[in-house]
Amino acid sequence: MNAPDLSCATDLPADRSACAARDAADPLARFRAAFDLPEGLIYLDGNSLGPLPRAAATRIEAVVRQEWGAGLIRSWNDAGWIDLPGRVGDRIAGLIGAAPGSVTAGDSTSINLYKALNAALSLMPQPTGRSVILSDTGNFPTDLYVAQGLCAASGGRLHLRTVAPEALAGSVDGDTAVVMATHVDFRTGRMHDMQAVTRAAHAAGAAMVWDLAHSAGAVPLDLAASGAECAVGCGYKYLNGGPGAPAFIYVRPDLQDRVPPALSGWMGHAAPFDFTPDYRPAAGIRRQQVGTPPILSLSALDAALEVWADVDMAALRRKSLALSDLFIALVERDCAGFGLRLVTPRDHGQRGSQASFACPADLGGGYPVMQALIDAGVIGDFRAPDLLRFGFTPLYLRHVDVWDAVDRLRQILETRRWDDPRFHARAAVT
Amino acid sequence: MNAPDLSCATDLPADRSACAARDAADPLARFRAAFDLPEGLIYLDGNSLGPLPRAAATRIEAVVRQEWGAGLIRSWNDAGWIDLPGRVGDRIAGLIGAAPGSVTAGDSTSINLYKALNAALSLMPQPTGRSVILSDTGNFPTDLYVAQGLCAASGGRLHLRTVAPEALAGSVDGDTAVVMATHVDFRTGRMHDMQAVTRAAHAAGAAMVWDLAHSAGAVPLDLAASGAECAVGCGYKYLNGGPGAPAFIYVRPDLQDRVPPALSGWMGHAAPFDFTPDYRPAAGIRRQQVGTPPILSLSALDAALEVWADVDMAALRRKSLALSDLFIALVERDCAGFGLRLVTPRDHGQRGSQASFACPADLGGGYPVMQALIDAGVIGDFRAPDLLRFGFTPLYLRHVDVWDAVDRLRQILETRRWDDPRFHARAAVT
Repeated sequence: MNAPDLSCATDLPADRSACAARDAADPLARFRAAFDLPEGLIYLDGNSLGPLPRAAATRIEAVVRQEWGAGLIRSWNDAGWIDLPGRVGDRIAGLIGAAPGSVTAGDSTSINLYKALNAALSLMPQPTGRSVILSDTGNFPTDLYVAQGLCAASGGRLHLRTVAPEALAGSVDGDTAVVMATHVDFRTGRMHDMQAVTRAAHAAGAAMVWDLAHSAGAVPLDLAASGAECAVGCGYKYLNGGPGAPAFIYVRPDLQDRVPPALSGWMGHAAPFDFTPDYRPAAGIRRQQVGTPPILSLSALDAALEVWADVDMAALRRKSLALSDLFIALVERDCAGFGLRLVTPRDHGQRGSQASFACPADLGGGYPVMQALIDAGVIGDFRAPDLLRFGFTPLYLRHVDVWDAVDRLRQILETRRWDDPRFHARAAVT
Repeated sequence: MNAPDLSCATDLPADRSACAARDAADPLARFRAAFDLPEGLIYLDGNSLGPLPRAAATRIEAVVRQEWGAGLIRSWNDAGWIDLPGRVGDRIAGLIGAAPGSVTAGDSTSINLYKALNAALSLMPQPTGRSVILSDTGNFPTDLYVAQGLCAASGGRLHLRTVAPEALAGSVDGDTAVVMATHVDFRTGRMHDMQAVTRAAHAAGAAMVWDLAHSAGAVPLDLAASGAECAVGCGYKYLNGGPGAPAFIYVRPDLQDRVPPALSGWMGHAAPFDFTPDYRPAAGIRRQQVGTPPILSLSALDAALEVWADVDMAALRRKSLALSDLFIALVERDCAGFGLRLVTPRDHGQRGSQASFACPADLGGGYPVMQALIDAGVIGDFRAPDLLRFGFTPLYLRHVDVWDAVDRLRQILETRRWDDPRFHARAAVT
């Protein structure tokens, strides 16, 4: 987190072959072969949906044909489906600086956030005068929506307050029950200081809930050291678990048995197969499970996480910053004069694993530029109102990919190729 | 629902070849080829986990290789992932007697029940003196657990009351806010009269929530005609959607825009890709969506539902009753003297698509009998405390399967093969 703020331009490679030389020396280069990437495509959107790990394709076929097809109901025991949420949780725990047994996988990020907020609120001494869930305007909308729903259901007892991301730590006060923040901003890539924000929450007597959707698998994390009460995150971005992959929830080990689960279902029961009429929560993190998890999707995530077993997270971080530094420097040099404005912090200590540029109105606000870039084989994404967003995923991206991506962006801007009507038609999902 | 109560024994086939003759005349026989069933196995557990539809295996491979692997993030638009919950919902609507646009798929049954109960409660005039969620002791435990969690969170405002299944309709009173029932009892196979129970709820001013986990794809349903406010159900039983397949929720069309979603996530937002900070629920059933759905699992369910397009539900019901009648009659004739006791109603009007027998203590309480039967290639399941449960799924089961299953059960009982120590060891999942 405290890496020096290297000027992006200091060690710009002279040409594409200099990028290729960096790739040849890359200690993470071998991981690219673990993914089934379309030939010729440059994929800078692993922060929206990670690509297909070869291991996931193989696993899913086995789960469908052998475990489901041949094993049928027996696979709940024989293939260990019943323990899959915890096994996947333990793999994720290893990537976010959490202890084994503190994470379980299943449900969506939104639903896990609902559980986490309820868990955090239940830790407040009762009755509490604290009425605020504090968050920031950079939080992902679904996080704010979940909190709003919870506040609406409280009958006026709770309120959501959002402040600017930079003001978050300084805004915690005696009325704050929970601080809820997404560690890395989905638009700007700005990264909160996890330790400092959590300290501020605790200093004011509030609980801390982190959303690690854009952090898990993207940056080194030490969740346990932060002391945060709860965290959630996403399986389908940097973890490469597949479209809509199950999400995860972390509850600090000393609190797991103190929090009554907000969603009490049979998979979180102490003895689900006793089929007793009364709910009795399981010990530990398992009580945060609810219904039967989607085994096909969860198995794909499990296989995707196997890739991570040998990844050196410090090396990952170094390469992530090298790639985003390179991208920023090349865009600012080669696309100068088109009005693109970096909104991602240059400071490494405040940057996640992406880079976003705001587009001026005379580039159609950015949407058609991104469509033209996708058409040219470079997939990033557009985020309203005007952002071109690019994710940098060190397991499969190369320095030459960054070089080529900027080269294609430059051509699109110089030839105004984006100003073709077909790039202006909005799709359902942007 | 009003089929005559045929005596089970009246038309008992004389021998196995008489069963084969019935299979040859079965109008549903062709559907068996749509499933990838293990050779030689008799699968009477499709009410726990349906077998693999060939179409699902093909679809999953295409979703993994083409949609995820090659299409990547573009498949949200190009493969229509964004509309998949509604498309799957519409397929299910056709099977449960609901209008298009009244069902959406995603999340687990437990979580959908949480949404449905909250939706139903929100319809009560406020302030309401009604404090009871009324259910029955035959309800599936997770349904009771979800209601208990909701009551616990209400701070004493709500209570769960359970009565015997037969007493449900007669127990609704002016203090009942919501009647919550599972249409077909997971243990006994007893089926509620959906129209009568719903009428009783409405007559007392209460809302009705049905759990169709053991009904959808098992019996003809006319949910719309019942007037019930909400319903939920399961994708992995009779619908054959795969292990942990996403569940579904129905909200009566005239109420959809009146109920504030209990779990307010971005997929239920009116414009999720505007990324606005304030939650604004989508119109219609879509507001019941929450987070990003598990596309692999949801796609398997979608493909599994294709099989149902040509199924005549009246024919399905006739065959279901023929199979369970045959099973009951053969067990009572060929396994007489071992103390097995039918707990499933003989009355067709009260029977779902299963048959369960209670086992006496001198058969080890039933658990080892079921293990020995599974070992002999007949998969049913054991349900605590003493039930042997068998599901009858007309799309792929034959009359000869029923004949053979009872023959193997008879042999196990006569030779006491179940009394081998290896059949007594309890597995994690029963």
